[in-house]
Amino acid sequence: LEIGVKREAQVFLVGAGPGDPELLTLKAHRLIQEADVVVYDRLVSDAILDLVPAGTAKIYAGKATKCRAMPQDEINELLAKVAQAGHRVVRLKGGDPYTFGRGSEEAEHLARCGIAFEVVPGITSASGCSAAAGIPLTHRGLASGVTLVTGHARDDRSLDLDWHRLADPDQTLAVYMGLAMLPKISAELIAAGLAPSTPAAAIASGTTAKQRVCIGTLTDLAERARAQDLQPPVLILIGRVVGLSAVLAPTATAEAHDAEERRHVAI
Amino acid sequence: LEIGVKREAQVFLVGAGPGDPELLTLKAHRLIQEADVVVYDRLVSDAILDLVPAGTAKIYAGKATKCRAMPQDEINELLAKVAQAGHRVVRLKGGDPYTFGRGSEEAEHLARCGIAFEVVPGITSASGCSAAAGIPLTHRGLASGVTLVTGHARDDRSLDLDWHRLADPDQTLAVYMGLAMLPKISAELIAAGLAPSTPAAAIASGTTAKQRVCIGTLTDLAERARAQDLQPPVLILIGRVVGLSAVLAPTATAEAHDAEERRHVAI
Repeated sequence: LEIGVKREAQVFLVGAGPGDPELLTLKAHRLIQEADVVVYDRLVSDAILDLVPAGTAKIYAGKATKCRAMPQDEINELLAKVAQAGHRVVRLKGGDPYTFGRGSEEAEHLARCGIAFEVVPGITSASGCSAAAGIPLTHRGLASGVTLVTGHARDDRSLDLDWHRLADPDQTLAVYMGLAMLPKISAELIAAGLAPSTPAAAIASGTTAKQRVCIGTLTDLAERARAQDLQPPVLILIGRVVGLSAVLAPTATAEAHDAEERRHVAI
Repeated sequence: LEIGVKREAQVFLVGAGPGDPELLTLKAHRLIQEADVVVYDRLVSDAILDLVPAGTAKIYAGKATKCRAMPQDEINELLAKVAQAGHRVVRLKGGDPYTFGRGSEEAEHLARCGIAFEVVPGITSASGCSAAAGIPLTHRGLASGVTLVTGHARDDRSLDLDWHRLADPDQTLAVYMGLAMLPKISAELIAAGLAPSTPAAAIASGTTAKQRVCIGTLTDLAERARAQDLQPPVLILIGRVVGLSAVLAPTATAEAHDAEERRHVAI
């Protein structure tokens, strides 16, 4: 082995994207076809698992929201063991492995075991839901940047975010897994100075056939999401860009166009 | 037309990802094959343009860093005109259309013209470079979230970011197009309280064969990037996660493994 030369990877930590199987990368799709073993998450959709060839071993390593099916340590061990047995492993993770995916913990473990690995990025939920709901993450004059945080926490107290930094009217805030903590998130942001009328959206199962989008404000989004019985996984988007969904949401163009046509007919 | 029903899109605003053609989504790849006309950016790599079928019209709408080849208004007009002429258009944009891509301005224009469009997300540069350089965007105990901003500005004064909000040791900061402004960015973050020793990386042409990664600290990264003559496009990553590249960078495993083997041989 030459120092600094990349060895062929034994484990691929692969982002499966937000849910729509067509949002897999070409590389993810190829690696799934070439794998001996696919280890997958709860957030990887059935439509994506259908792409795994019939002869390939599939191992579920999901963690449900409340009951943790397999602790992270065990997943790390599992990946190392299957690789050391000589199998070519694809570790398929919802979204992007290095954005709230704990992929870096798996990568660290593999590195320490001397197992060659490669990380394949995926479409992160914020990008996927943004496109699918017609809510750009940035837009001139409305949002000069975007911050991604996770709303996942064991209890109210452990959601320890710096609310004053996050309460920025000139940026978009994307909260992953934010449904359970939405009332707290809204209250904290308002307390930190963000206007209660700030537009906010909750996107459930974004990019999939089950997608549901709930639009409101910081004040009422939690109540609206509860009334509509939204179910995880949910991405929350907060900021002035949410207002653009009235024009940019996939159904908005047809509606605007029809309104325009009716106006012409009326004239 | 039924209200609220999605019409078949005439224009697809498609994210081409960070550069590696294998990081295109399956959907982007399919739409490129089906397009009548492909309108593309300067940031779309030649390797990706090679995937456009020979019979498909290609129109360059790039904007160079300093000489703006085509103003945004003209691009908006161009997309509308080609679509109204009955052609199926793929507007191919580097990265993700709704993250610093000005894709939402194009979408807004199409919506106002009553032209049906669809946005297809792409791998944004922060995800692509993160995977390619072994620098996770989030990691337990090191970064609880990530903020994406752009360092692109006409001059020093117009780079008007809220440095105090951005100078957060518990988050990763990703600066798109940040090379030219790197000295100012570092100085402002240090002045706002971020430790001068904070690890920082500059990744040029991330995910492509031309990729170069420069690692340093807030204090010396600008000087190192200049010494190595890095060229745009460059993504800057700032925060404690950058330190993980020593273990997670694609060449790091082989090196660690070799060091381990040499130690065994020596024993």
